[in-house]
Amino acid sequence: MDKISIVKIGGNIINDPQELESTLEAFSKLSGPKILVHGGGRLASDMSKRLGITPKMIDGRRITDLDTLEVVTMVYAGLINKQIVAQLQSLGTNAIGLSGADGNVIKATKRPKGKIDYGYAGNISSVSADALSQLLSAGFTPVCCPITHDQQGQLLNTNADTIASSVATALSSTFEAVLYYLFDKSGVLLDVNDENSLIPLITPEKYEELKRTQSVHTGMIPKLDNCMDAIGQGVHRVYIGQPKIIADNSTPKTTISL
Amino acid sequence: MDKISIVKIGGNIINDPQELESTLEAFSKLSGPKILVHGGGRLASDMSKRLGITPKMIDGRRITDLDTLEVVTMVYAGLINKQIVAQLQSLGTNAIGLSGADGNVIKATKRPKGKIDYGYAGNISSVSADALSQLLSAGFTPVCCPITHDQQGQLLNTNADTIASSVATALSSTFEAVLYYLFDKSGVLLDVNDENSLIPLITPEKYEELKRTQSVHTGMIPKLDNCMDAIGQGVHRVYIGQPKIIADNSTPKTTISL
Repeated sequence: MDKISIVKIGGNIINDPQELESTLEAFSKLSGPKILVHGGGRLASDMSKRLGITPKMIDGRRITDLDTLEVVTMVYAGLINKQIVAQLQSLGTNAIGLSGADGNVIKATKRPKGKIDYGYAGNISSVSADALSQLLSAGFTPVCCPITHDQQGQLLNTNADTIASSVATALSSTFEAVLYYLFDKSGVLLDVNDENSLIPLITPEKYEELKRTQSVHTGMIPKLDNCMDAIGQGVHRVYIGQPKIIADNSTPKTTISL
Repeated sequence: MDKISIVKIGGNIINDPQELESTLEAFSKLSGPKILVHGGGRLASDMSKRLGITPKMIDGRRITDLDTLEVVTMVYAGLINKQIVAQLQSLGTNAIGLSGADGNVIKATKRPKGKIDYGYAGNISSVSADALSQLLSAGFTPVCCPITHDQQGQLLNTNADTIASSVATALSSTFEAVLYYLFDKSGVLLDVNDENSLIPLITPEKYEELKRTQSVHTGMIPKLDNCMDAIGQGVHRVYIGQPKIIADNSTPKTTISL
């Protein structure tokens, strides 16, 4: 099986032009087929405020009313996605930017109203490994933004971590899929303020123990749940750490594996 | 040679949700390979104003400073492009939205400062017929927005009419390329206020005569120059008229041909 790298970059990287540039340089140098997934960073909230729309977040998730959906579609699928694609092109990587609607790559359904109405937020129902494979075979490097669609004309705001794990999972039947979550920490830490408290390896058993003993920051739980889903469904490895882990294999990081 | 349809939709269609919907329905039903090119409509100016940026236009062309480039990238490549792609997906057309940076499809250079500094406006230097053909062969229907790049990381605002004619021209070596300019009039009119003054056929000789006798509205000159360039460089036919001309061959329109 060929190896494929799925690299997700978070808000802290996107917010810092220099960090973004060095990350894209490292991504460009990665050999083999690869896919970049980006989140939104601070820009969507900044743009909302400039347009007089108050950003509403609950537990780190954005409440997406129609006005907010317009803003995130503009910022994620327009500004951030196209700036990343243009930068990758300048580095010699033939990037192609995608929302889930493009090529029908990621279908989702509007999240049902529970206690909280998240508005136009999407739960992923399927990722088209075929469409992504066709683009990869044609020599393109997909760059996915966190916007999906319901195939009935409705765009939906979707968590970028979940997009990354769903894309990796969908491709794991034809590739040895390796998923990287890049952010500003060295990996999963026992103490968020101590980079020396890095947990080098998390297996499903270790994860149960960490949750039972409440040893990881609650903000990491949704990300780790995504990782566990991914390795449980065929993704070969997940790595969590700083951007330099994709360039240098010896950089400390958290490895997630069965 | 296989036929390909390149369909450009203008601002008046994009500004009117019902008109846009019926146009996308007709486009979806077009048989054979096809490409949609869209302009921006009123939305970019509206969004600029909401963000406190005064839109500056000279002779119908937008002056694109850096703030304005951000707005047009958000509105054209983000909001309008993704809404059109999602609508086409709902109609069963496997659309894929593209700026010129995506797949390196359209390269441009920043327009040199002349009497007027247009800012981050792009003059097209090349269209990759290969990239477009690969996407078409894979079953995708490209939807192009009026943003290009210089291959050095810079996005550029580019006239949508020129994108449409350049795309049609690039594809005319491998396809019988037919280019449609859709807008709110029946075609090229001798009197803009009289739909009965339609000019049914314009050849290069006829165009010279029309210009000499100042018989067409000056606003149509850049569009017609694009059309003349296209047929002079191998595009089979250009049709100008209302959206229904793509659904019904007998609808009055202006045909441009050698």
